[in-house]
Amino acid sequence: MTVAVGRLFLVPTPLDFGVGDALAAADIQESLPLGVIRQAAGLSHWVAENARSARAFLKRVGAIVPLAQPMQAIHIAELPRPPKGREAGGRLAAIDLAPLLAPALQGLDIGLVSEAGLPAVADPGAALVRRAHELGIPVTPLPGASALLLALAASGLNGQAFAFVGYLPQEAGARAARARELEALSRRNGQAQLMIETPYRNQALLDALVATLQPTTRLAASCGLTLASGWTRSDAVSTWRARPGRLPTDVPAVFALQAERTA
Amino acid sequence: MTVAVGRLFLVPTPLDFGVGDALAAADIQESLPLGVIRQAAGLSHWVAENARSARAFLKRVGAIVPLAQPMQAIHIAELPRPPKGREAGGRLAAIDLAPLLAPALQGLDIGLVSEAGLPAVADPGAALVRRAHELGIPVTPLPGASALLLALAASGLNGQAFAFVGYLPQEAGARAARARELEALSRRNGQAQLMIETPYRNQALLDALVATLQPTTRLAASCGLTLASGWTRSDAVSTWRARPGRLPTDVPAVFALQAERTA
Repeated sequence: MTVAVGRLFLVPTPLDFGVGDALAAADIQESLPLGVIRQAAGLSHWVAENARSARAFLKRVGAIVPLAQPMQAIHIAELPRPPKGREAGGRLAAIDLAPLLAPALQGLDIGLVSEAGLPAVADPGAALVRRAHELGIPVTPLPGASALLLALAASGLNGQAFAFVGYLPQEAGARAARARELEALSRRNGQAQLMIETPYRNQALLDALVATLQPTTRLAASCGLTLASGWTRSDAVSTWRARPGRLPTDVPAVFALQAERTA
Repeated sequence: MTVAVGRLFLVPTPLDFGVGDALAAADIQESLPLGVIRQAAGLSHWVAENARSARAFLKRVGAIVPLAQPMQAIHIAELPRPPKGREAGGRLAAIDLAPLLAPALQGLDIGLVSEAGLPAVADPGAALVRRAHELGIPVTPLPGASALLLALAASGLNGQAFAFVGYLPQEAGARAARARELEALSRRNGQAQLMIETPYRNQALLDALVATLQPTTRLAASCGLTLASGWTRSDAVSTWRARPGRLPTDVPAVFALQAERTA
């Protein structure tokens, strides 16, 4: 007798992680489809970036659709932690993640969640997804908010060609050099270039971009996406210089730049 | 007396556009948050890629949350049409889109919708968003499904650095050259490279990628994302060669490749 293999569901979470307890109590139906909430409520096995955050998420899920099992009966395994931020890419590859996927091989569906947004995009989890493919476990991504694409849409920059480049270097000289490199790349290939920063460095990155880029380059910053207080500003660098921007240092921001093409 | 300016809401739509009437009747709560549906139900002014599709969408919205106005009273303006597909980028820039935004300057909120997914991402609308910023109209992107990011998450490829490059050339030689160029770029900068194709050419693109790329390069294809029949396959090119893939020619697909890094 063969056991049907379970699926790995990539479960999006709201983007309000870590922005205050009041907000954390907000109705997740503002940013998650009911179909996704139902799917999440039915899962008994999870792999999470952080188990505590995953439990907090499940509590919010259970407030909309009763969980199929009591919280104590739900298994939550944590992803091995890669270094945070700049060095995060690819370092999980050395660890065998197959044990985390064992329930799927026994026929049970597994959910993967990160702290905020879509797992495996600008977030840990891609290595687990890759391992699932190797093991023949079907992977199903569920729809939800992605800060990167919301910021891109709201920027008015080129949604037909864009790149996400992660973090810029912290050191001022290297950061300016990288900003100029991205601007030159954008001028050549027309791509909007998206980047993120640790929230307390939001202002430093904005100031560096405004100081470094060409006056005609378009620069957009989105803060607190999906929050009531969220906003997006998209202007030529010359306009940012004339009217400087202030960014909050406690909510995530996404930055996007696009050079005017000389052609 | 000053009138408060209205907002431009970027309203996501389900990804099932054009995949059959039966599916088009599916509950949009499978892929759209209730908060977004409520917001959409309250809007009286819209700008749409296609007015007929926008009305069909609003009918589905109204099945969940009653529309604030009868359908006949809702204003739907169409975006000027850029050429479809490969030539779509940026051609709207020459037309002044300000008249489409006039309701916002009179204090009314406007919704922007495309045929499927997030407006202004791999879709028309970016020029309107840019014009809104120029006119001082706040832009609010609402969360929903993006086929690009769902495909990226499901691929297990690099979610920390990626690019969306749109369409590859149709001509076989140029297409192969571009595929090799993207593979070389991915090897150098570690970016996953995402692309799309007109559905009836899905198989031709897959075959070309499988024939052209290095055996160790990872190649992913996602079809029918958010549909019950949707699936993602992510394998080394050598595996695709050993076990060829068949893609449907009537649902959108997203392709992603990532070269093994030689470092």
